[in-house]
Amino acid sequence: MPKRKIAVVITARPSYSRVKTVLTSIQKHPELELQLIIAASALLDRYGSAVNYIEKDGFEIAARVFNVLEGENLTAAAKTTGIGILELSTVFDNLKPDIVVTVADRFETMATAIAASYMNIPLAHIQGGEVTGNIDEKVRHSITKLADYHFVASEGAKERVIKLGEDPAMVFNTGCPSIDLAKEIKSSTKLPFNPYEKYGGVGAQPDLSKGYLVVMQHPVTTEYKDSRKHIEATLEAVYKLNKPTLWFWPNVDAGADGTSTGIRAFREQHQLPQVHFFKNMEGKDFLELLKHSDCLIGNSSVGIRECAYLGVPVVNIGSRQNKRDRGNNVIDVDYCQDAIENAILQSSEKGVALSSSLYGNGNAGEEIASLLTTLPLQFHKTIMY
Amino acid sequence: MPKRKIAVVITARPSYSRVKTVLTSIQKHPELELQLIIAASALLDRYGSAVNYIEKDGFEIAARVFNVLEGENLTAAAKTTGIGILELSTVFDNLKPDIVVTVADRFETMATAIAASYMNIPLAHIQGGEVTGNIDEKVRHSITKLADYHFVASEGAKERVIKLGEDPAMVFNTGCPSIDLAKEIKSSTKLPFNPYEKYGGVGAQPDLSKGYLVVMQHPVTTEYKDSRKHIEATLEAVYKLNKPTLWFWPNVDAGADGTSTGIRAFREQHQLPQVHFFKNMEGKDFLELLKHSDCLIGNSSVGIRECAYLGVPVVNIGSRQNKRDRGNNVIDVDYCQDAIENAILQSSEKGVALSSSLYGNGNAGEEIASLLTTLPLQFHKTIMY
Amino acid sequence: MPKRKIAVVITARPSYSRVKTVLTSIQKHPELELQLIIAASALLDRYGSAVNYIEKDGFEIAARVFNVLEGENLTAAAKTTGIGILELSTVFDNLKPDIVVTVADRFETMATAIAASYMNIPLAHIQGGEVTGNIDEKVRHSITKLADYHFVASEGAKERVIKLGEDPAMVFNTGCPSIDLAKEIKSSTKLPFNPYEKYGGVGAQPDLSKGYLVVMQHPVTTEYKDSRKHIEATLEAVYKLNKPTLWFWPNVDAGADGTSTGIRAFREQHQLPQVHFFKNMEGKDFLELLKHSDCLIGNSSVGIRECAYLGVPVVNIGSRQNKRDRGNNVIDVDYCQDAIENAILQSSEKGVALSSSLYGNGNAGEEIASLLTTLPLQFHKTIMY
Amino acid sequence: MPKRKIAVVITARPSYSRVKTVLTSIQKHPELELQLIIAASALLDRYGSAVNYIEKDGFEIAARVFNVLEGENLTAAAKTTGIGILELSTVFDNLKPDIVVTVADRFETMATAIAASYMNIPLAHIQGGEVTGNIDEKVRHSITKLADYHFVASEGAKERVIKLGEDPAMVFNTGCPSIDLAKEIKSSTKLPFNPYEKYGGVGAQPDLSKGYLVVMQHPVTTEYKDSRKHIEATLEAVYKLNKPTLWFWPNVDAGADGTSTGIRAFREQHQLPQVHFFKNMEGKDFLELLKHSDCLIGNSSVGIRECAYLGVPVVNIGSRQNKRDRGNNVIDVDYCQDAIENAILQSSEKGVALSSSLYGNGNAGEEIASLLTTLPLQFHKTIMY
Repeated sequence: MPKRKIAVVITARPSYSRVKTVLTSIQKHPELELQLIIAASALLDRYGSAVNYIEKDGFEIAARVFNVLEGENLTAAAKTTGIGILELSTVFDNLKPDIVVTVADRFETMATAIAASYMNIPLAHIQGGEVTGNIDEKVRHSITKLADYHFVASEGAKERVIKLGEDPAMVFNTGCPSIDLAKEIKSSTKLPFNPYEKYGGVGAQPDLSKGYLVVMQHPVTTEYKDSRKHIEATLEAVYKLNKPTLWFWPNVDAGADGTSTGIRAFREQHQLPQVHFFKNMEGKDFLELLKHSDCLIGNSSVGIRECAYLGVPVVNIGSRQNKRDRGNNVIDVDYCQDAIENAILQSSEKGVALSSSLYGNGNAGEEIASLLTTLPLQFHKTIMY
Repeated sequence: MPKRKIAVVITARPSYSRVKTVLTSIQKHPELELQLIIAASALLDRYGSAVNYIEKDGFEIAARVFNVLEGENLTAAAKTTGIGILELSTVFDNLKPDIVVTVADRFETMATAIAASYMNIPLAHIQGGEVTGNIDEKVRHSITKLADYHFVASEGAKERVIKLGEDPAMVFNTGCPSIDLAKEIKSSTKLPFNPYEKYGGVGAQPDLSKGYLVVMQHPVTTEYKDSRKHIEATLEAVYKLNKPTLWFWPNVDAGADGTSTGIRAFREQHQLPQVHFFKNMEGKDFLELLKHSDCLIGNSSVGIRECAYLGVPVVNIGSRQNKRDRGNNVIDVDYCQDAIENAILQSSEKGVALSSSLYGNGNAGEEIASLLTTLPLQFHKTIMY
Repeated sequence: MPKRKIAVVITARPSYSRVKTVLTSIQKHPELELQLIIAASALLDRYGSAVNYIEKDGFEIAARVFNVLEGENLTAAAKTTGIGILELSTVFDNLKPDIVVTVADRFETMATAIAASYMNIPLAHIQGGEVTGNIDEKVRHSITKLADYHFVASEGAKERVIKLGEDPAMVFNTGCPSIDLAKEIKSSTKLPFNPYEKYGGVGAQPDLSKGYLVVMQHPVTTEYKDSRKHIEATLEAVYKLNKPTLWFWPNVDAGADGTSTGIRAFREQHQLPQVHFFKNMEGKDFLELLKHSDCLIGNSSVGIRECAYLGVPVVNIGSRQNKRDRGNNVIDVDYCQDAIENAILQSSEKGVALSSSLYGNGNAGEEIASLLTTLPLQFHKTIMY
Repeated sequence: MPKRKIAVVITARPSYSRVKTVLTSIQKHPELELQLIIAASALLDRYGSAVNYIEKDGFEIAARVFNVLEGENLTAAAKTTGIGILELSTVFDNLKPDIVVTVADRFETMATAIAASYMNIPLAHIQGGEVTGNIDEKVRHSITKLADYHFVASEGAKERVIKLGEDPAMVFNTGCPSIDLAKEIKSSTKLPFNPYEKYGGVGAQPDLSKGYLVVMQHPVTTEYKDSRKHIEATLEAVYKLNKPTLWFWPNVDAGADGTSTGIRAFREQHQLPQVHFFKNMEGKDFLELLKHSDCLIGNSSVGIRECAYLGVPVVNIGSRQNKRDRGNNVIDVDYCQDAIENAILQSSEKGVALSSSLYGNGNAGEEIASLLTTLPLQFHKTIMY
């Protein structure tokens, strides 16, 4: 019997980190053939060139698709998606996958979902059913309505996908594949690499041996004009605390330039003797960094998921993760310098948070690969009410 | 106060007919400005050049967008959608509408929905919540999850949209605007025009005075390889009955060529002394034609909606309208010559069917225009569970 | 040493026929690897699905690109080219060819030329330097200015390409590869197949044993509104002569619908007991058909090239081949029924025309493959004055 | 008589500066209507948002088209062009211009040329016939072969366009419109504004009263991998000379990131107490700045044209302007720190260079507007040999 061809489209560095164990599991599975397609910001230097890490990790790339349209407004996001559909259709037409896998809720993942579903290719969606309250959420649920199989990350997500009218027999709580990576480092006792040497970056190189903060804050699409103001609140708080801090540049989004510009301008105007800036980091190393940090600050979903599993305190800023189920490791604050400062201080006092299996137990990759092998190939569906 | 700018994107002849009263009501409303965008098959001769009717009806066109990619497979449908997004983004960026309106569930209407929602323009969706069981249904519900306002056509649809997690305060059962047109001709007692003179077409010109059949059968996307076989069953049945018949060419879809080719080949091989073929017809004239016919045959949604309201018997073939709520005017049959023949005979015996207000009472256009004037401009939403 | 990868982009049935021996020669060459890309109308059923013939001929296809935008106007031609660039860039980026080959002057071949030259891939152009006097000519010379190597079909063409400022060392008169095919059948003494059986088609099946006419007339882009009137002059002439006639449908172009519609309408209104219509024919069979015909009528470049070599009389209508170098086998006429009729009669009287090697001696394919092996890989150039 | 509608497509800041007087002259002309279309990097913040200056200058914008695809390689340039064609076709289809004007030779201007010529809209090309020896030159001559009217900037250019086979009656040496602006400030005796106050920028604010250098160096497409090394030679030379220097960021091109990255990295690693960086400057102010500078350094065409007219010494680096006709104000050097340093020193010694009218006398804008009014509207042409 021929292997099932599974096309996975990766469009951004964080999505790659999140589903890496799914890719590994597909690749290793004797009945599956992985067709890895790299597109959008995953190909671009200024968003961390995920493609380089992917190749270094030993994956073969079946097709590359440059489709990020440059622009300072939301129009570019829409057009990026349009170009993505145009090109991914050709890629699918040439690769002829049996199943297409799309990840999460970035605006451009809609392109994968439309190309596959319009071409009658069964579509699997990883991480549907979550609630976040902005364009990501619209996109996520909209993809759910196009997808044929749903690999969700929590019981709450499973319930919501079923409520959306999907066939319960096609909704699987596999846990989040990002937890699979976290599982591998859970018992790590010290940071196993020197981040400055391994990842370069710019700025000061504070001593990390007495603890440190990690910052990762993305612009929030529907508020993109405010993204500069938002990042400034965080910058001021971190500046004032003056603790060893490792800061990660935001990934692409309408408004990315607001956030980046804000950081760049702040650096021009202030001395930051305790802050180092990274463009990106290999997923596992990033988890090690978090595991040994005092606190993660920002609005990354890593704070909600992996940090829950690892028991890392998180200061979650603003609305981006608003409605995601969270463990007791998270303190939520507004875009406000004082609140951010206090929360950071409070979280360090708190010590290690409790670890939770809210987002899975670390075997999502294998479970998804196994489902991809056995699920019936189908692309007809109807609403369940 | 400046008028609200309402952009409506029309992509096909039947969509135009369906929402014509909405356009008229927006145009007449003192607080609204209509920005009419014509795209996709609505611009193309071989799908009936809706654009010509639109201009004849006195609407001014703000932009034209050619985006139908030619092809015999589903890839073309996906790519048409991609090009649509790319171009409609530019159009919206230049026209700066306050609200964008998208209609129903054709694959390419997704382009309108994505461009508007990604650009943070409030999106109104007409005819969400219906159930049909193929790619149209995936598209329809997927658009619902992107839309901010829902103007649905029946109570069943309203319930489903709310179950999909939409805010009940933003879901309005306005009835279907197509019924507005039907209302105008409901009391017509005879066909007020000669269709051969007014619309040309090809083939025989049977005498219509003793009754006649109307056929309108579209390919069904997920079964497009079968579309030729499907149309042949209908052709054989109509050929055998040999009654005066007015046949309408199908509109664009992947598989359209199968249906068209089937009709063309059948005409080459058979004499059809009672069958006349039309490319298209102005919406109101088409309703008059139906009103005075013995029976509508095929899979058009007109049979489900307008014919319910007008009390015209319908032989509904195959799965296309499978799950739509229907009145007692409809007989459902499979793609099978005998079944089609019998149903046609049976429906003529039955006489006039009962009229039903299942899809509204004929004031949807005005109601929608009024809502567009008063609804809060918003594009943030979250799932209601 | 690794083989040189040679990407050839085929966008239409006639282009395939023309360069088939080039493809065969590349494929057979031990130092070359053929990357065959099929795009545009070469993929479409209504233009004869060249792709099917290509596969039947044993070529492996590296990528397929659907990019024909549907429309009744010239806008569609421009957009088809835009989509072509967008997608061919991705294809080249993934296939990484050492040289890209583009053929002739169809509007969409510009896409190949731009994608390759912008990406610094050395570009070879087959059939530059010819003069035709419409958009094709603009496109042809424009591609010449982007191309790095020029494989031209005649001495006149060579001179013109050099006058255009190209480096004479990079301009090669290889002859036209279409003559390679003609060479193979030059000594054929009778039609070796029954065209009705082998190619189907529609219409009468006249007896071909006493001679027959062949018609192939394409719309002329810059006059596309007149294309219906033009084809009608030819139709009237052929109708009146009432000789066995084999008529080929036109290939895609803005205006194609005018020509096709004209033919279709004429067939509805007239009995044509001596005319058979074909959609397309494998290149070699078509040459056999010409070789044994009394005369070719229309505006195909086959009349100018292959028919010169084969010595077949040609009635060349209108401006399409206006300025191409021609042999004494050609009679030129205007779009005028009488002139066409007279020329057909005159050409049959004339008997067999003299064969000419104006467009080569039948070894273009091998010569081009050999040049592709040895030419320096370069993409820098400057005008030679 | 209705005004002729003249669509001008501006895709970059420098192109706008260059043709500003053409726009003004069209706008003022009683028989012309200007349709100004802003696209590509002219809309983008990181290339200086030309669009803001255009609006401030009082021009009304008929359409905006975002089409710059992001990427680190040449693929993005090709794709940007493809998207440009796709969208400009729609824009032209909606605006229905009588003539389209395209400027110079940037890769993406090809999109304007193709859209217009394929749509049978007469195409005017400003600045054809120049020789530069890289992809720009391929593009420039390729556009010449598509264009119907040629407004060239020098006698040498005129001769070359005619040699390219263009009808001499359609080739006009109007001079370069950029000289029109230079004319207005030719008699300026001192810098009429404070550049730091008016244009912000970053870095030191050296005293300009005793003379200063201006640097503007763009990446050279065909050598894009080297662009970082190239810019570093210039950076080292300027760093070593340590004179007051005003440095302008490069505009978009494949490789732009190499140049920008080089500058950014150099700034991180060195103190530059005499160097100020500007993103961009209004055209006239930039000319004032040049007029009062000691020397322009880099590879901008401004050095070849406006500086010739103004008599400003220029150190022209590398191959970008290689083959352009130049006045005696230019010293050519390679990408070599020492050579650059020496040339700068030598040029300051030389004192004011001689002014030359090589590129016109300052009335190009009016002359072009006048020609656009009277030229026959035509889009048929053939090669003149």
